[in-house]
Amino acid sequence: MKRVIVDMDGVMADVYHQLVQFEKRDSGKEIEIRGLAGMPEIDAFPNGKKHIHEVGFFRTLPVIEGSKAALEYINSKYDLYVVSAGMEFPNSLREKFDWLAEHFPFISWEQIVLCGSKKVIHGDIMIDDYPKNLDHFAGEKFIFTQPHNELIENAAYKRVHSWEEIMSIL
Amino acid sequence: MKRVIVDMDGVMADVYHQLVQFEKRDSGKEIEIRGLAGMPEIDAFPNGKKHIHEVGFFRTLPVIEGSKAALEYINSKYDLYVVSAGMEFPNSLREKFDWLAEHFPFISWEQIVLCGSKKVIHGDIMIDDYPKNLDHFAGEKFIFTQPHNELIENAAYKRVHSWEEIMSIL
Repeated sequence: MKRVIVDMDGVMADVYHQLVQFEKRDSGKEIEIRGLAGMPEIDAFPNGKKHIHEVGFFRTLPVIEGSKAALEYINSKYDLYVVSAGMEFPNSLREKFDWLAEHFPFISWEQIVLCGSKKVIHGDIMIDDYPKNLDHFAGEKFIFTQPHNELIENAAYKRVHSWEEIMSIL
Repeated sequence: MKRVIVDMDGVMADVYHQLVQFEKRDSGKEIEIRGLAGMPEIDAFPNGKKHIHEVGFFRTLPVIEGSKAALEYINSKYDLYVVSAGMEFPNSLREKFDWLAEHFPFISWEQIVLCGSKKVIHGDIMIDDYPKNLDHFAGEKFIFTQPHNELIENAAYKRVHSWEEIMSIL
């Protein structure tokens, strides 16, 4: 059974949507996501650096469209692991665990990895929005489109724009 | 540079010592560690199952003798990762992070992995006290002696009894 490694932020959880909402709440600024192509994710928001350290930020992230149904299917057909670089934000560790338990109850604790670097992770397929994670992976690399990676053209990755598209491949 | 994967509980952190202390505190029973060879770790203590879920259990674990100096050395010579199956105890996630920051400040957040199953972990050498973790590992396997694994004889593992012994090999 092939092992599929799936990232959380920007793949299962909608970080941009949350940053837009928090920015509007705090500064009144309405940031247009379509204008952020190619910009570093957090720097695209005036208060982004503050917001990602806020208690509750990761716990209340919206679920990315189509991810629940797709991951329930992938979980039945593949050896699925959710791997998130949560160690950078220690507050997020428990929040990420609780978020997964709420939205993806079919994913067991055995299938969850919260790490720093993803260099130690081994599998057949990785779905991630960051080249820094995909580049060290020995298997097949799917880059999940998010504004910060939109302008990257690299034949080493297969670009996927939605969970619907992933479902049609896996 | 070879990658070394080191477990926390039973390798860096002294779980038996903590279970003995907590048992004494709660029931007055003084459990002799030398009588526990071959028994499952938690079952060897009347209140073990309760204690490992107690807030603060993992945060206050004593450091295993010799592990600080040895890991500081290993960290300078190898690509070191600390990999702990903390996901079974969600309370332990932040506690383990804070425990490492206190006792092993030279280990950065990039080098920490809190997971469920260790099947996804890839490296050259794994130091762990549990066969279930070592058995899926593709590299060299060191079993760190703890009472629960003392009676296991398996040529697939190199048995190490102390950090002093590990230092003499690595």
